[in-house]
Amino acid sequence: MSRRRLIGTAGAAGAAGLVAGAAGGSATYAATRPDEPTALATVGSATVAFHGAHQAGITTPLQARGHLVALDLAPGAGRKEAAALLRRWSGTARRLMAGEPVGEGDTGIALDAGPSALTVTFGFGRTFFDVTKLADRRPSALDPLPAFSSDHLDARRSNGDLWVQIGSDDSLVAFHALRALLKEAGDAARVRWQMNGFNRSPGATARPMTARNLMGQVDGTNNPKPTDADFDRRIFVPAKPPAGTPGWMTGGSYAVVRRIRMLLDDWDALPVDRQELVIGRRKSDGAPLTGGTETTALALDKTGPDGKLVIPDNAHARISAPEQNGGAAMLRRPFSFHDGIGADGTPDAGLLFICWQADPLRGFVPVQRKLDRGDALSAFVRHESSGLYAVPGGPREGEYVGQRLLES
Amino acid sequence: MSRRRLIGTAGAAGAAGLVAGAAGGSATYAATRPDEPTALATVGSATVAFHGAHQAGITTPLQARGHLVALDLAPGAGRKEAAALLRRWSGTARRLMAGEPVGEGDTGIALDAGPSALTVTFGFGRTFFDVTKLADRRPSALDPLPAFSSDHLDARRSNGDLWVQIGSDDSLVAFHALRALLKEAGDAARVRWQMNGFNRSPGATARPMTARNLMGQVDGTNNPKPTDADFDRRIFVPAKPPAGTPGWMTGGSYAVVRRIRMLLDDWDALPVDRQELVIGRRKSDGAPLTGGTETTALALDKTGPDGKLVIPDNAHARISAPEQNGGAAMLRRPFSFHDGIGADGTPDAGLLFICWQADPLRGFVPVQRKLDRGDALSAFVRHESSGLYAVPGGPREGEYVGQRLLES
Repeated sequence: MSRRRLIGTAGAAGAAGLVAGAAGGSATYAATRPDEPTALATVGSATVAFHGAHQAGITTPLQARGHLVALDLAPGAGRKEAAALLRRWSGTARRLMAGEPVGEGDTGIALDAGPSALTVTFGFGRTFFDVTKLADRRPSALDPLPAFSSDHLDARRSNGDLWVQIGSDDSLVAFHALRALLKEAGDAARVRWQMNGFNRSPGATARPMTARNLMGQVDGTNNPKPTDADFDRRIFVPAKPPAGTPGWMTGGSYAVVRRIRMLLDDWDALPVDRQELVIGRRKSDGAPLTGGTETTALALDKTGPDGKLVIPDNAHARISAPEQNGGAAMLRRPFSFHDGIGADGTPDAGLLFICWQADPLRGFVPVQRKLDRGDALSAFVRHESSGLYAVPGGPREGEYVGQRLLES
Repeated sequence: MSRRRLIGTAGAAGAAGLVAGAAGGSATYAATRPDEPTALATVGSATVAFHGAHQAGITTPLQARGHLVALDLAPGAGRKEAAALLRRWSGTARRLMAGEPVGEGDTGIALDAGPSALTVTFGFGRTFFDVTKLADRRPSALDPLPAFSSDHLDARRSNGDLWVQIGSDDSLVAFHALRALLKEAGDAARVRWQMNGFNRSPGATARPMTARNLMGQVDGTNNPKPTDADFDRRIFVPAKPPAGTPGWMTGGSYAVVRRIRMLLDDWDALPVDRQELVIGRRKSDGAPLTGGTETTALALDKTGPDGKLVIPDNAHARISAPEQNGGAAMLRRPFSFHDGIGADGTPDAGLLFICWQADPLRGFVPVQRKLDRGDALSAFVRHESSGLYAVPGGPREGEYVGQRLLES
C-alpha cells in the first residue's frame, strides 16, 4: 500500500541567502512504517544565513509560518540593557537559524526538526530612540506615518520600541524560536503585541509561488525582484546613506507592518467577475484583465467594446502600480492571519502586511496615500494596526544586530 | 547558487486510506527561478479518500494545519434541514478532498495547490438528537462526560450540535475548506466555536513522527497502531454494535475534544530533569526513564539506587499507561494551538486534544479519571473546553455522512 517517490525541490535560492543544508529530515507522514528507510528532505534542512549584508527574513522566500512580536523596553531599561538584549537575541537567533538548541533550558519544542528555513529579524521603532537617549541617531524615515482616512488603528497593537519577525516552514520551529526569544527578553523588555501568520506550505503547489491571500487573490506580482538592477537601491539603505539617514542603517531597510483585516463575508458575497474589477486582475492566475499572464504589464489605457477602461479607474492593481506612483516600490512579504471568529461574528482573518523599502516616503507612503483616496478594495479591508521599524543591516561575524547603533 | 536534490517521501499510508495522487505540485520556494523545471511533490498531491468504512481524519497521519468548528442548528431548523446540510457538506468535502473547487462562488483560496492531504470529518453532539427529535437514536455513549475536578470548562467553547474537523498539510487549503463549509451552513446552522491548530510540517523532521507538543514533549507514543490486532475493536464501532449503540454508528467512532491550555511559563521554568519526572519519559526522545527507546515498555516497578520508583507514582506516563487502566485505549490525534498572548499575559497556547475510541467509557473517561486524581502534569495544564461527538462511519459511494442516521 505504501510506495516511495522521488521528488525534486528547489532547496536553495541565491538571492535569499538560502542554503540547503547537507543533513536533514525526511518528509515522513506519521503513519510511515518505522522500518522504511528515511531520506533527506529540504524542508527541515533548509538553512538561512544569519550573517550577511542584510538581515535574513527580507528577501528570504515566504515561509509557511510566521510570528510578529513588538516589545517595549521595561521601565528603567535603557541603552545598556537594550544592547545586552540585542546581543543575547543575536546569539540565540544565530544558533536557532543553524538548527542548534539555545543551550541550558531549551524548551525542546524544535527537537527532531531541522531549522526549516528559520529566520529572525530585528527592528527598532521610533520610541526606541527616546527611551535609549539615542534620538540623535534616529533616522528621519522613522517619522510617524501620515494618518490615512481609512485607517482603524488600534494603538495597543501598533508600534513598539522593538520588533521581531520570526519565519519558518515548520510551525513548531517557529514557536520554539518565539519562546526562546521572549524568555531572553527577561526583565529588559515586555511584549506589547504579538501576531501569528502563515503562508502556503512548501510543496503544496506547482506554481512558481507568488503568494495567494485569503481573498483568493494572487498577491505580490509586481514585487521588485532581487534580480532587478535597482533592487538593492529600492529596498536597502546604501553604503553612503542620504541626508537624515545615519550610517548605522547601511544595509538596513524599513519595515511597514499592518494588520489588514479582510471583510471576507462581504468579499465572498461578490461574484468573481466583480472581484476581478475591484482588483484589475484575473482571480485564477493574477493576469491583468487586459490579457496575458501574471507578469504581463497592465494595459492601463485599454478600453473595452463599451468604451470603458478594462482595468477600472479605481482598480487596486492600477492605483498601486509603480508606474502610477513615480516608480515607488516596496517589497511586500506578508503572512496571512486567521484568529478564529471575531467579536462581530465574522472571520478575524486577513493579511499581516509587511513591506520593505529603503525609504518609506518613496515606498509605502505614496502608494497608500493613493489607495486611501480611491482604491475599490478599501471597502473590503480594514487596517487595524500599524508599525514602522528601522531594521539595521545584517551582522558581520562576531557582531550582534544593531551593534553599530548601540555601541558606536 | 541554486541546486536541486532528489528527496524521498513516503507519500502513501495504507491504514489511513491515504492515496498519493499522480499529478501534483512542486516543492518550490518563492524565489525559485521560473525557468527551472518543476517536479512532482507529495505534499500538494496527497489525497485522502472520502468514501470508506470510516471517515477520513481519524487514522489519517497528522496534518500540518487543522480547524475545528462546532455549530448549533439554527432556531427552526430540524432533522430535514440537518439532512440537507449534511448532504451539501458531504458533496463539498468529497470535491475538496479530491482537489476540486466547490463550483460557482469558490473563493479561490486553494487555487494552485493540491488537496494536500485534506480531510473533513463530521460529528454529532448530544444536543443534536434533541433538536432533530432523534433522541431515540442517540447513542448512550453520548451521555455527558463526568465532571473532573481539575476542569475549567468554558461552556461557550464546549459541545455543540455539530462538529467539523478539517485537516490539511497546507494552511490555505484548510482555510479554503473552512470557508466553503461555513458558507454552506447557510441559515441551517450557526458557528458555536471555532479553533485553529497545527502540527509539524511534512519534511521538517527525519524522526518517524510521533508528535511533539508545545511543552517539547514527545506525545502519542502509546497510541494504538492501525496494525494492532485489536485496533479496529478499540477505535471503531463494530458491525454488531453493543447495547445502547444504534446501528447507524457502525464504522463510526467517538471523539473527545478538549482545548488544553498549557501553562508554558510555569513549565519552562522547571529544569528538564524535573519535567522528565513529571512525564516519566526522557524529553529528548520520549524513551521511558527506565531506559530503552521511545517504544520500550515502561518498567513501572523499577527502583533507583535510592529505593524510589524511577518513574514516579504520579508520572503522567504511568498514570495514563493502558496497563494501569484495564487496557483502556484511545487514539490521540491532536493539533497544537497558539492564539497569541492571553488576557493574563501568558501564551494562550497548548493542545487541541482529540481522541478517538469505540466507547468513551473504555477510552477517555477512565484514563482522565485517573489523571484527574493524581497526575503530576495537572499543575501545568488546564482543560478549558470539552466536547464529545458521535462520528458516524464513512459514507459509501453516493451516500452522505450521517445518512444512515438521518434517513433510515
